Amino acid sequence: MDYLFRDVVAVLMDRDHSVLRGAYVGVEAGRIAYVGNTPPGTDAASGVARAIDGRGCVLMPGLINAHTHLPMTLLRGHADDAPLASWLSDHIWPAEARLDSRAVRAGTMLALAELLASGTVSVSDMYYFCDDIAACVAQSGLKANLSRALMCPDGAFDAAHDERLREAVKLYADWHGFDDGRIVVEASIHAEYTSPPALWEAAARLALDNGMGMHVHVSETHREHEECLSRWGLTPTEVLDRHGAFGARTTVAHGVWLTGGDMDILAARGASVAHCPVSNLKLACGVARVSDMMSRGVNVALGTDSAASNNSLDLWEEVKTAALLAKNENGAPELFTAPDALSLAVTHGAQAQGRAKETGQIAVGFDADLILLDFDKPHLSPCRDPLSHLAYATRGSDVAMTMVRGKILYENGSFPTIDVEKAKWEAEHYALPLIFATQ
Amino acid sequence: MDYLFRDVVAVLMDRDHSVLRGAYVGVEAGRIAYVGNTPPGTDAASGVARAIDGRGCVLMPGLINAHTHLPMTLLRGHADDAPLASWLSDHIWPAEARLDSRAVRAGTMLALAELLASGTVSVSDMYYFCDDIAACVAQSGLKANLSRALMCPDGAFDAAHDERLREAVKLYADWHGFDDGRIVVEASIHAEYTSPPALWEAAARLALDNGMGMHVHVSETHREHEECLSRWGLTPTEVLDRHGAFGARTTVAHGVWLTGGDMDILAARGASVAHCPVSNLKLACGVARVSDMMSRGVNVALGTDSAASNNSLDLWEEVKTAALLAKNENGAPELFTAPDALSLAVTHGAQAQGRAKETGQIAVGFDADLILLDFDKPHLSPCRDPLSHLAYATRGSDVAMTMVRGKILYENGSFPTIDVEKAKWEAEHYALPLIFATQ
Repeated sequence: MDYLFRDVVAVLMDRDHSVLRGAYVGVEAGRIAYVGNTPPGTDAASGVARAIDGRGCVLMPGLINAHTHLPMTLLRGHADDAPLASWLSDHIWPAEARLDSRAVRAGTMLALAELLASGTVSVSDMYYFCDDIAACVAQSGLKANLSRALMCPDGAFDAAHDERLREAVKLYADWHGFDDGRIVVEASIHAEYTSPPALWEAAARLALDNGMGMHVHVSETHREHEECLSRWGLTPTEVLDRHGAFGARTTVAHGVWLTGGDMDILAARGASVAHCPVSNLKLACGVARVSDMMSRGVNVALGTDSAASNNSLDLWEEVKTAALLAKNENGAPELFTAPDALSLAVTHGAQAQGRAKETGQIAVGFDADLILLDFDKPHLSPCRDPLSHLAYATRGSDVAMTMVRGKILYENGSFPTIDVEKAKWEAEHYALPLIFATQ
Repeated sequence: MDYLFRDVVAVLMDRDHSVLRGAYVGVEAGRIAYVGNTPPGTDAASGVARAIDGRGCVLMPGLINAHTHLPMTLLRGHADDAPLASWLSDHIWPAEARLDSRAVRAGTMLALAELLASGTVSVSDMYYFCDDIAACVAQSGLKANLSRALMCPDGAFDAAHDERLREAVKLYADWHGFDDGRIVVEASIHAEYTSPPALWEAAARLALDNGMGMHVHVSETHREHEECLSRWGLTPTEVLDRHGAFGARTTVAHGVWLTGGDMDILAARGASVAHCPVSNLKLACGVARVSDMMSRGVNVALGTDSAASNNSLDLWEEVKTAALLAKNENGAPELFTAPDALSLAVTHGAQAQGRAKETGQIAVGFDADLILLDFDKPHLSPCRDPLSHLAYATRGSDVAMTMVRGKILYENGSFPTIDVEKAKWEAEHYALPLIFATQ
C-alpha cells in the first residue's frame, strides 16, 4: 500500500453523504484500495510506504472545476471594474491578442498551482493555445478536459479551411486520452453569438464522430440571450439544440438566463450546466436559477470561470456562493443544504466531465483523487458537522494535501510537479511586459 | 522606532486610494511614526528594534468588523440548513440558554483568534455575558466596541428593575475606556420586534447621558419589517427614530429592507449601516441596497454577523461579496469598485465605531493597527493592481501579520496573546457538552 490515511474524518461523497470518523483510507497503484473504520489487515498494513496521521483533518474527494480559462491568471485584476462590453472588447481581447505560447504556459502553470493548493483535482478548460495548456496539465499531474473554443465572428465559416477547427482536430489527435485518460479533449462552440450554424454543426459532428464531449457558453448575459431571440426567434439553447450541438456529453457554461424550457431541453439531452456564480455576479450578469435546473433534472456543476472575471480559482468560494445565492433565491435557507452545495463541486463535476466512474467518491476502486484538509484551526473549531464546515467555513487555504491518482501534487505549500518560482518570474518578467508594454 | 516595514507595497486607504510601492512605514510607541518612499533618517533608523522585510507583501490598515456576536463560534454549523424561524427559536435560542461564562470565554477566544488570523483589528459586538467578552478582548489586544443587547420580548419593560439594563450600565462602568479607549462600551437595542418603546427610550437615554454609541438590528428580514409596519404604521427605522434611538452615534445592523425614506433618516442622523451580505444571503433575508444607501449619504460598514449565520468571521469574504452583490444589483460592474469595497471594511468601519481619527489609515499619528499580507503566492501572482487583488482575490489566510497599536497579535500562525489550544479544548470538551449534551 502506497499511502494509508489513519484516524481521519472521511467525507465519502456517496449518496448518503456518509461521514466516517476515525477512518482508515488506503491508496495503492493510484487507486483507493481500502476504506474502513478499522486499520486494514496486517498484510496490507505492513507494506504501507507512508502512513499519514489524519487526526484533526478531513479527507474527501478532490474538487472539480467545470469551467475555466486557465491562462487568464495573467489578466487577473485587469480593468475589472469596467463595464462588461468595454471590459471584453477594449481590455481583455486586445490583451489576449498579444499572448504567445511562453506567456500562456506561465499563466497556466500559475493557474494549476492555485487549483492544486485549493484542492482542485480536475478542470474543464476552454481556451486557445491548447497545446501549451495540455503540456502544462501533463506536467502538473492534474486531470483536465481541454477544448479549443471554435468561433467565427464574421460568420463566414468554412469547415475545410478553418484554422481553429484544424487546431481542435489536432488537439484531439495529439492529446485525447493522454496518460490513460488523465487528459480528455472535447469539442467546443465558444457561443451562439460568436459563430454561425455551420460552425455549430461542424463542432457537433467533430464531437459525435470521435466520442468527444462538448463545451459551450450559453445565456451568460441577458443581452446575449435577447439578441439571440431577435436573430433566430429562439433562445440560445433552442437554436443550438436544433443544430445538434447537445448530441454529445455537453457542458453548458453559465446558463444564467435559461428559460424553464431551455432547462428541460438540457435535461433531456443529459447536458450539465457549469454554474459560475462569482463570475456572474462580478460581471453583473445575474444569478442562475440552480434549484430550478436541478429540480428539472439538469446536472449542475461548478466553475470559477477565469481569474479575470472572478478573480480567484478557489472553488470553495463557488461552493459557498452557490449555496448562499440558492438559499436567497429560494427565500428559504433550508432549500439548498451543505451536502447539496458540496455535491456540485464533486460528484456533479465528475458527471459533467464524464468521469463519474473514476473520481468524486471515496470508495474502493476509484482513482485516489483526494484532498486532506487541516481542520485544527480556530475558524474550524469546534466541529460538530464536517459537511457544514466544508460548505460554509472552509477556504482553499485549509487544504493541506492534494493527490491525483495517488500522486501527491501539493503538500503544505510545496508543489512537486510545478516550478512555481519560475512560473511567477515568467509571468511577471516575460508575460506582463508582452501583454501590457505598449498599452 | 519599534518596527520598520521596508520595501513594502503600502495601501494607505486615504481619499486618493494611494498605493506606495517600495514604501517604508515606521511604528513607534503604538503609533505610525513614519511613512515614505525612502528609509527614515539615520537617527530614527538606527534605533529600529525590528526591521520587517516587506518584499512581496502588502501593508494596509487592519479590517474592522462592524457587527458580530463573538461567542457564537460555538454554534457554527448548528442547524444551519433549517428554516429561519425554526433556526432561531428551536435551535439557536435553546442552545444559547445553556451558555455559561466559561463556555462564552472559550467561544470568544476562538472568535478573536479567527479575527486576528484574517486581519481584523477591531470589532463591534452585540451579545450578553459581555463582562466575559470584555475580559477576552482585553487579553487579546484587539479593539472592540461592546454592547449588551437590551430586549424585553414580553413588553413589560421596567427601567428601574430590568436586569439587562443593569448589566449594560455596569458594563459601561467597568469597561468603557479600558486601555485608553481600546474597549468602548455602547448601548444596544436588540431590535424593534423584541422590545417596547419604553426600552428604546431608556437605551437612548443611557447612550446620550454617557456619550455612548448605539448598536441595533434593523430591518434584517422582510417579515420583521412588515410586522413593524402593521404594529406601528411605521417602518422599524421610523418608529425607532421617533423614540430617539438614533440620537447617539449609531450602528444599524443589516438594513436589508430599508426604504429610501429610512436611508434618508439614517443619513440625517449620521448613523452607519453594518452591511452583512453573507449572513443575509445564508438566512435568505435578501440583499441590502448598499449603493442606494451610500448615494443617500449613509456610512456603510461591513459585518460578518455571527459564525452561526455566516459561517465565517473572515471579513475578506464580506468585502468581495459586498462588491459582487452591488455590481449585480446595479446591473453594472463599474458601479462598485475595488476601492469602494475595501473602504467599507476599513475607513467606513472606523467611522461607524467612532474611531476614524485613530484607525483605518496609514498616516503618521494614527494607531499602528496594521496588517501585512503575503502576496508571494500563485493566486496573487502576478500583481499589477494591489487594490483589485485585495478586493477580489485575497483571502484571510493571506494575512501574515496583524498588529494593533504597534503590538503584534498574530504572526504566521502564532497568537502571542491567545492560548488557542486551550480555547479549542474548552470549546470542544466543556462548551459543546454543556450546550448539546441533552438536546
